Amino acid sequence: MIPKVSVEIVEVGPRDGLQNLTQYVETEKKIHLIDLLCQSGLKEIDVGGFVHPKAIPQFQDINEVAKRLPRIEGVKFTALVPNLRGAQNALGSGIRKIHFVFSISKSHNLNNVKMTPEESIEELKNITNLMVSYPETEISIDLATVFGCPFEIVVRKDDIMNCVKRIYDLGVRQITLGDTVGFGNPRQVEDIVTTCRESYPEITFGVHFHNTRSLGLANALAAYQAGIRSYDSSIGGLGGCPYAPGASGNVSTEDQVFMFEQMGVETGVDIRALFKASQYLEDILHDVSLASSVYKAGLPGDQKI
Amino acid sequence: MIPKVSVEIVEVGPRDGLQNLTQYVETEKKIHLIDLLCQSGLKEIDVGGFVHPKAIPQFQDINEVAKRLPRIEGVKFTALVPNLRGAQNALGSGIRKIHFVFSISKSHNLNNVKMTPEESIEELKNITNLMVSYPETEISIDLATVFGCPFEIVVRKDDIMNCVKRIYDLGVRQITLGDTVGFGNPRQVEDIVTTCRESYPEITFGVHFHNTRSLGLANALAAYQAGIRSYDSSIGGLGGCPYAPGASGNVSTEDQVFMFEQMGVETGVDIRALFKASQYLEDILHDVSLASSVYKAGLPGDQKI
Repeated sequence: MIPKVSVEIVEVGPRDGLQNLTQYVETEKKIHLIDLLCQSGLKEIDVGGFVHPKAIPQFQDINEVAKRLPRIEGVKFTALVPNLRGAQNALGSGIRKIHFVFSISKSHNLNNVKMTPEESIEELKNITNLMVSYPETEISIDLATVFGCPFEIVVRKDDIMNCVKRIYDLGVRQITLGDTVGFGNPRQVEDIVTTCRESYPEITFGVHFHNTRSLGLANALAAYQAGIRSYDSSIGGLGGCPYAPGASGNVSTEDQVFMFEQMGVETGVDIRALFKASQYLEDILHDVSLASSVYKAGLPGDQKI
Repeated sequence: MIPKVSVEIVEVGPRDGLQNLTQYVETEKKIHLIDLLCQSGLKEIDVGGFVHPKAIPQFQDINEVAKRLPRIEGVKFTALVPNLRGAQNALGSGIRKIHFVFSISKSHNLNNVKMTPEESIEELKNITNLMVSYPETEISIDLATVFGCPFEIVVRKDDIMNCVKRIYDLGVRQITLGDTVGFGNPRQVEDIVTTCRESYPEITFGVHFHNTRSLGLANALAAYQAGIRSYDSSIGGLGGCPYAPGASGNVSTEDQVFMFEQMGVETGVDIRALFKASQYLEDILHDVSLASSVYKAGLPGDQKI
């Protein structure tokens, strides 16, 4: 029997969604989007990345965004950091939870953050040392290419488990397992998630799926059955590769919330309030078609379709 | 643990996919599409409907299609029939397996086939009587709106089980449970499928999902875990409502085969051969964008995305 245990939805749209757009979204629009997301009941929102503005121009205003974030009891605003410098800037800006990202596969990590996984782990060590000076902050690892790599295709389970061990040894207790390019399948998700959770019960594992090959929610279901209770997703399904025709990106938050709520699994998110954020995105983005089926088709009874 | 047991993919594209198009597809093109689908290894293909040509002009050539079907050892060609007359015509044309369709919900059945569910069951009785004269033929029921109705929204489980009992009592041993409008969710699928299979172990149940709200493959996964081994899907994800922007239709065969094969669950279908049928569809259809993610994104390693 599929259980009914509440889950947390981690909204990554303002970061993972917007970073893929060519269109620059002005600071006040980013803040308004984040406000709308908060109003839907989301409790953790990734608001951007502390990266070089030449690498991702979308985040050139990240300090301003961090400064203007609303203060809401119980809501965490997080940011992505690829290195020590990013972590210093993020913590300095007042961000209380950082996501340090690196890939299991060497070629993807070199491509993405210009480091080998070994070097990223060294950098993580420096970041955890830095964080001693910031007592009320948290770190979570966004582990990329866990379920497949666009360059190396298959990623060995031994490499995944070795990486998780290294992270554990550095004292970090939150890891999000990412299917960066939508190669994962439910059996593989069940297998990797189960091994991770059984090997490291003190670590809280989350998952981050892409819907590139339509398996996003099937993978989320498999992860749920294997005990995962934290799910990344992106409003409007933004993300992925906007230049590949027909490619969808992250699992859409609307669709993921819809699946769980229809199953009687509480997310704490009001889907109709979420639609206001989807609508706002549609209003401000040019030439972008949202990849959220339930937003387009409507809830049962809405008679949109 | 998710098991590894082979499944059968039932291709409904030439029927459920094409019937929703405004564009008429000429007979020879239909036959060529069916040929390509056969070459991919599909063993059951729904080739059209024996309905009044005014109701669905796409099937005005159904007799010609039935006459020109290739003869391939082990491949079954089926057709949909909404009533006795359709069954007479189908069996007369040489079709050896018919799908009799009706909905659990009264309003949808009236809308779809102009009969109440009671009247459809009476019609089924007439059809099973007729089939006595056609000894080497089969019938399967396409039960619509099992997981929700666009008019009545919620469909009672008692109504479903009562309907299944009536079908059983008429001696029919194949039923496909259809999520006609994409309202179903994995917990509901698990529940209904489990009750159906436990109550009627002599009936072979299949499932037919739509991806309207992105849950098509999550529902397929739930059905698989609940013991279902027969899955409808449509090449290119054709079907659904072509007039609703952003709405996708049936689960795409490419995506469904991809999910099962990636899980190590054999479908007997060669996905690259299937892509030739997708490509052909793209070539012959005007203004239709296929809703098959894996066809668009490519297999892992194809580097399309």
